[in-house]
Amino acid sequence: MRARDLVSDFPTISLDAPAADAARIVADRHLLALIVVDAGGSPVGVLPATAVLRLAVPRYCLDDPALARVVDEAHADAFLRSLSGRTVRDCMPDDPRELPVTDPDATVLEVAALMARTSSPLVAVMDDGRLLGAVLLTRLLGRVLSS
Amino acid sequence: MRARDLVSDFPTISLDAPAADAARIVADRHLLALIVVDAGGSPVGVLPATAVLRLAVPRYCLDDPALARVVDEAHADAFLRSLSGRTVRDCMPDDPRELPVTDPDATVLEVAALMARTSSPLVAVMDDGRLLGAVLLTRLLGRVLSS
Repeated sequence: MRARDLVSDFPTISLDAPAADAARIVADRHLLALIVVDAGGSPVGVLPATAVLRLAVPRYCLDDPALARVVDEAHADAFLRSLSGRTVRDCMPDDPRELPVTDPDATVLEVAALMARTSSPLVAVMDDGRLLGAVLLTRLLGRVLSS
Repeated sequence: MRARDLVSDFPTISLDAPAADAARIVADRHLLALIVVDAGGSPVGVLPATAVLRLAVPRYCLDDPALARVVDEAHADAFLRSLSGRTVRDCMPDDPRELPVTDPDATVLEVAALMARTSSPLVAVMDDGRLLGAVLLTRLLGRVLSS
């Protein structure tokens, strides 16, 4: 079994897209990470959904989540408004991390090693500079367990 | 909106359960993390699905995933067999991390802050020592965006 047997379409989002769009895709598609692409469509990173929350939540609440309880419920419910004007680029971690990208010939062991090493639930699959899609951790496990 | 409005049933797994059972639940339920409980049913951690892969993948492949390609395809397909005899406890990270646990009264901002701070896509909800279930990041975003 190779990456080409496991790859499926996967939504991408541009570095310059609104961060709120990333939140919407995560919610609508029930995904926990998105592939971030540059203007040329090449993957530049994987955006964990928790990173979008990190941008939306006020700093003092990140330092001590219990402090969030002093914010009244109506304002708490509206916390995503702080994403207004921010982009996916603003959500990306400062430290450039290893990109979980492979090619269609990668074995399941190679894909699993990439996921484990980068703590990423998906690996992007590139063929000759073109993004084919992604291998998802749940799909990889499902196929390996049923084979 | 409070944690009690967002909580849903969520599978737990015992520290002493076979690691292969965790892989099976992840694959069957399309989850990327499980709540780990002790013998008394109290949450002791969140197990990311990538941590199960980390236990299954040989050390030299973690250090350099490209080395995995020297393993022939049949053996690569069978890499999960190395989970045999290992438990969930063996998958858990050595450094005890902050547990994403809250109570039913937590606001969405408090829950979001916990997810962002712990990089966890779920927060366990405890009521008086009893595990009610979990708030999932995708559900939280969906409800906040539609409210």
